[in-house]
Amino acid sequence: MLRTVGRLLISCQDRPGIVSAVTGYLLRWGANIIESQQYTTDPVAGRFFLRVEFMLPELERKLMDLECDFGELAESFAMEWRFTRAAKTKRLAVMVSKADHALQELLWRRRTGDLHADIALVLSNHPDLEEIVRGWSVPFHHVPIGPDSKPQAESRQLELMLAEGIDTVVLARYMQVVSADFLDRLPGQAINIHHSFLPAFIGANPYAKAAQRGVKLIGATAHYVTPDLDAGPIIEQDVCRVDHRHSVEDLRRAGQYVEREVLARAVSWHVEDRVIVHGNKTIVFS
Amino acid sequence: MLRTVGRLLISCQDRPGIVSAVTGYLLRWGANIIESQQYTTDPVAGRFFLRVEFMLPELERKLMDLECDFGELAESFAMEWRFTRAAKTKRLAVMVSKADHALQELLWRRRTGDLHADIALVLSNHPDLEEIVRGWSVPFHHVPIGPDSKPQAESRQLELMLAEGIDTVVLARYMQVVSADFLDRLPGQAINIHHSFLPAFIGANPYAKAAQRGVKLIGATAHYVTPDLDAGPIIEQDVCRVDHRHSVEDLRRAGQYVEREVLARAVSWHVEDRVIVHGNKTIVFS
Amino acid sequence: MLRTVGRLLISCQDRPGIVSAVTGYLLRWGANIIESQQYTTDPVAGRFFLRVEFMLPELERKLMDLECDFGELAESFAMEWRFTRAAKTKRLAVMVSKADHALQELLWRRRTGDLHADIALVLSNHPDLEEIVRGWSVPFHHVPIGPDSKPQAESRQLELMLAEGIDTVVLARYMQVVSADFLDRLPGQAINIHHSFLPAFIGANPYAKAAQRGVKLIGATAHYVTPDLDAGPIIEQDVCRVDHRHSVEDLRRAGQYVEREVLARAVSWHVEDRVIVHGNKTIVFS
Amino acid sequence: MLRTVGRLLISCQDRPGIVSAVTGYLLRWGANIIESQQYTTDPVAGRFFLRVEFMLPELERKLMDLECDFGELAESFAMEWRFTRAAKTKRLAVMVSKADHALQELLWRRRTGDLHADIALVLSNHPDLEEIVRGWSVPFHHVPIGPDSKPQAESRQLELMLAEGIDTVVLARYMQVVSADFLDRLPGQAINIHHSFLPAFIGANPYAKAAQRGVKLIGATAHYVTPDLDAGPIIEQDVCRVDHRHSVEDLRRAGQYVEREVLARAVSWHVEDRVIVHGNKTIVFS
Repeated sequence: MLRTVGRLLISCQDRPGIVSAVTGYLLRWGANIIESQQYTTDPVAGRFFLRVEFMLPELERKLMDLECDFGELAESFAMEWRFTRAAKTKRLAVMVSKADHALQELLWRRRTGDLHADIALVLSNHPDLEEIVRGWSVPFHHVPIGPDSKPQAESRQLELMLAEGIDTVVLARYMQVVSADFLDRLPGQAINIHHSFLPAFIGANPYAKAAQRGVKLIGATAHYVTPDLDAGPIIEQDVCRVDHRHSVEDLRRAGQYVEREVLARAVSWHVEDRVIVHGNKTIVFS
Repeated sequence: MLRTVGRLLISCQDRPGIVSAVTGYLLRWGANIIESQQYTTDPVAGRFFLRVEFMLPELERKLMDLECDFGELAESFAMEWRFTRAAKTKRLAVMVSKADHALQELLWRRRTGDLHADIALVLSNHPDLEEIVRGWSVPFHHVPIGPDSKPQAESRQLELMLAEGIDTVVLARYMQVVSADFLDRLPGQAINIHHSFLPAFIGANPYAKAAQRGVKLIGATAHYVTPDLDAGPIIEQDVCRVDHRHSVEDLRRAGQYVEREVLARAVSWHVEDRVIVHGNKTIVFS
Repeated sequence: MLRTVGRLLISCQDRPGIVSAVTGYLLRWGANIIESQQYTTDPVAGRFFLRVEFMLPELERKLMDLECDFGELAESFAMEWRFTRAAKTKRLAVMVSKADHALQELLWRRRTGDLHADIALVLSNHPDLEEIVRGWSVPFHHVPIGPDSKPQAESRQLELMLAEGIDTVVLARYMQVVSADFLDRLPGQAINIHHSFLPAFIGANPYAKAAQRGVKLIGATAHYVTPDLDAGPIIEQDVCRVDHRHSVEDLRRAGQYVEREVLARAVSWHVEDRVIVHGNKTIVFS
Repeated sequence: MLRTVGRLLISCQDRPGIVSAVTGYLLRWGANIIESQQYTTDPVAGRFFLRVEFMLPELERKLMDLECDFGELAESFAMEWRFTRAAKTKRLAVMVSKADHALQELLWRRRTGDLHADIALVLSNHPDLEEIVRGWSVPFHHVPIGPDSKPQAESRQLELMLAEGIDTVVLARYMQVVSADFLDRLPGQAINIHHSFLPAFIGANPYAKAAQRGVKLIGATAHYVTPDLDAGPIIEQDVCRVDHRHSVEDLRRAGQYVEREVLARAVSWHVEDRVIVHGNKTIVFS
């Protein structure tokens, strides 16, 4: 049944008639809408966003025509838009360092089917997680990064991703700042998990900063990566309660469980085309 | 602007074309959709539910025609449907006993504007809260209930409600079982707050039962009232954490904060036409 | 029974024998310990904190001797310490501006007995809340603040507090920065509620900043006031979930419920002598 | 340092002098208390519970004498008591069926050090998880259960547990009712994870029942196993939010994350001697 499921994502200037036109279009093609969500930043002259999930027999065969014909309607509303097929799962590269909690969660959810994506390869600047990753029958590549070799390492990483047809990169506690050039050349978006409740504790060692400030909750933030460190559009955040007894190490341990949960939710929404970036914010149709 | 906001609620057998027909209809009337949510129990031959919020200039004047003309379309899909105006706020009767926490929350949210409803009168079988209610400039009626006077008391309550044009009754810790006959004659739905996480601890003294069972969370449930005690469609639930140190009295105190929050959320959704009853469940378009 | 309940709070360098000495002392006086909590920053040469709640018949009469005799023991461990009586409720001054949510919550919890304190007076730089406060039979003073009259206003506020024997000041959305001089002259500690999850969004307009950053949770922080804006020791924090649909005004509305809850919890712990300040952090024996 | 850490758990009738006597005893042995928690069901003639964690050099060598000498003091207060060593980690047998989520969580937390226990063997009535378990270098035994072979199967399970020196059994979604005889012969306590918020939805298929009742939260409960199904002392519970869109299968998927978290917390508290059973409730010194 998944083979018949398609999605249409739209954003455009809001004005009367968009939903009517789009649903009419899908109806003429014989599609049955199974989920639909919309949002407008302002009913008067705001920006309109729509996500429709529909069933259409023989979708794969018809998709090109469905897209071609849609062009005219889309143009009349000056839409940004895209169709996707649910059966065409995204291919992820997961970049890690030494910590495995966020990676394990993604691998486990992949196997249970809660994460609708392929984890096509795992890249790390350390060899530590190789055995674990291979145990899940996923390719692992160790790409070391020396003080002067970051450009070469990033080129190697991109090469490996391109070879695997990656369309989304997940930084699952990668612990390295990636270059603007790397981001430019990425074949798709990159999602990072930051181990704090952004914008609190930007940058390195958030748990040490949290301990020093004496906060009563710690958090994690999944966001799209932009050249500005920890400043990209936020997809998801969550927190857990801590108290005066928590050392920095205790915060780090407790935080792992929030990090893995927040990242897994964000990646799931992303691969199901539920996240739309609008300026520096996200609209999440969860 | 609120005067131009209307809502359309629909449920019918799912099949292709419903959204297209409805949005096309609204477009022809010049309405701009500002919020739309839908749900289908099953894409194949399930039940379909839709809530649309739209802006239409001069809505009040046009509403009757808008409804009349809709009949044909509605019939062709065998829809249950209704239009409402956001500006026509619902009129609530709140029934209480001696505890004021849930009532105060509703009164306070009414004043801040978070609760879009009129609290037209408060009824109680005890006189204790009279001064508090009058302090909010809301009519208060003490209708005592003796061992043999429940039928007369219920008649008096209904009389007072009818005189005030009530369309929703809120049992805000009323502590009395209402009769099936009373429910039948009510001019609208009744929402109750039960001080447990249903279906756990149905009936009287849930906090005593919770203490006896040694639960680690206590909860509250807002539901529509049906003749079966505590068995009506659930609108909202929430919990709070407790531990071995909580006596029954401590649970009761802690539970108040969950009860008031859960009830206030449920009533808000109800008065904004966000809740649809389907069998013994609710669809909440929050 | 409350009249017989006393509390002892201690902090000192950790070393073996503290608890044994303290409990032995209380035993010799015939006190029965009903609650005891302790914390040490480091078992080896750290700082030790203890809160003991005990029952002692005729506590009020015996307290002075109990304190006098304790001096020797306290000195031998170089303790900071204090005894308090549960029956001697703290006297609060609540400072507000125009918003009533945090204030109402304190007043309501005072009446239910969930907040063990006297709200002795309410001060505001605006007259708006006078009627509400008087409805609770609490004195209200309007002390306006002009562009050049802050020093005079603060002197007037202090005068009113001293006349009422205030020992704790609660800034319940006061919206004014108080001067370092004011803090110095305060007859006790001041607790502020900041409408963000500190250290995120320090200073003015946190909800506008939160909307701009596109966060998925908003929060509130109760902290002791120090001369550094929003940088004092944090007592309690909490958050609530928001999404892309929340305008700044929606965030402000949703945030109220977190603010009132967080402030009420913090004030309750403070007045029950459950909070110990250690450097810029708090130990909360909740 | 862990080798020097000991714990003392006590319960007895409450009366003045217990803490003083116990801390005095530990002081004479040169122990430094690093954590101490107590609870009394009622300050007047209630039951008193104490957990003390202390550091004592050469604990292993001294433990027997420490215990022997304590007998006199214990007798004078009619205490139930036990000393344990933190370094002597408990040995767990985990019983599973086909689902791996709760098991994986325990295995992963064991490796990170968040769970201070040995997972000595995994038993299952199905062979499905063998490969996964062996991947963690933990012995796996498949003990099939036929319609008439439960007694033999239980004997085999007990035999395997005895051979491994098991002291705690964890039913991590075992899906079989164990016999009263099996419980009697177990070498220690058994902890079960039930996939509902007890006492709601006792017995089989709680997610189906939850879907049918239309609840807005689902939960999980970790409890000690007693001969009464799902009625043993509750150690921990938690919930997650669901809505009308969740099918039974969706509830099952969402519930897994609560189940694994709740079970892991409960097992951690148990193996750190933080849980005391009192009647049909638990005191958890977390």
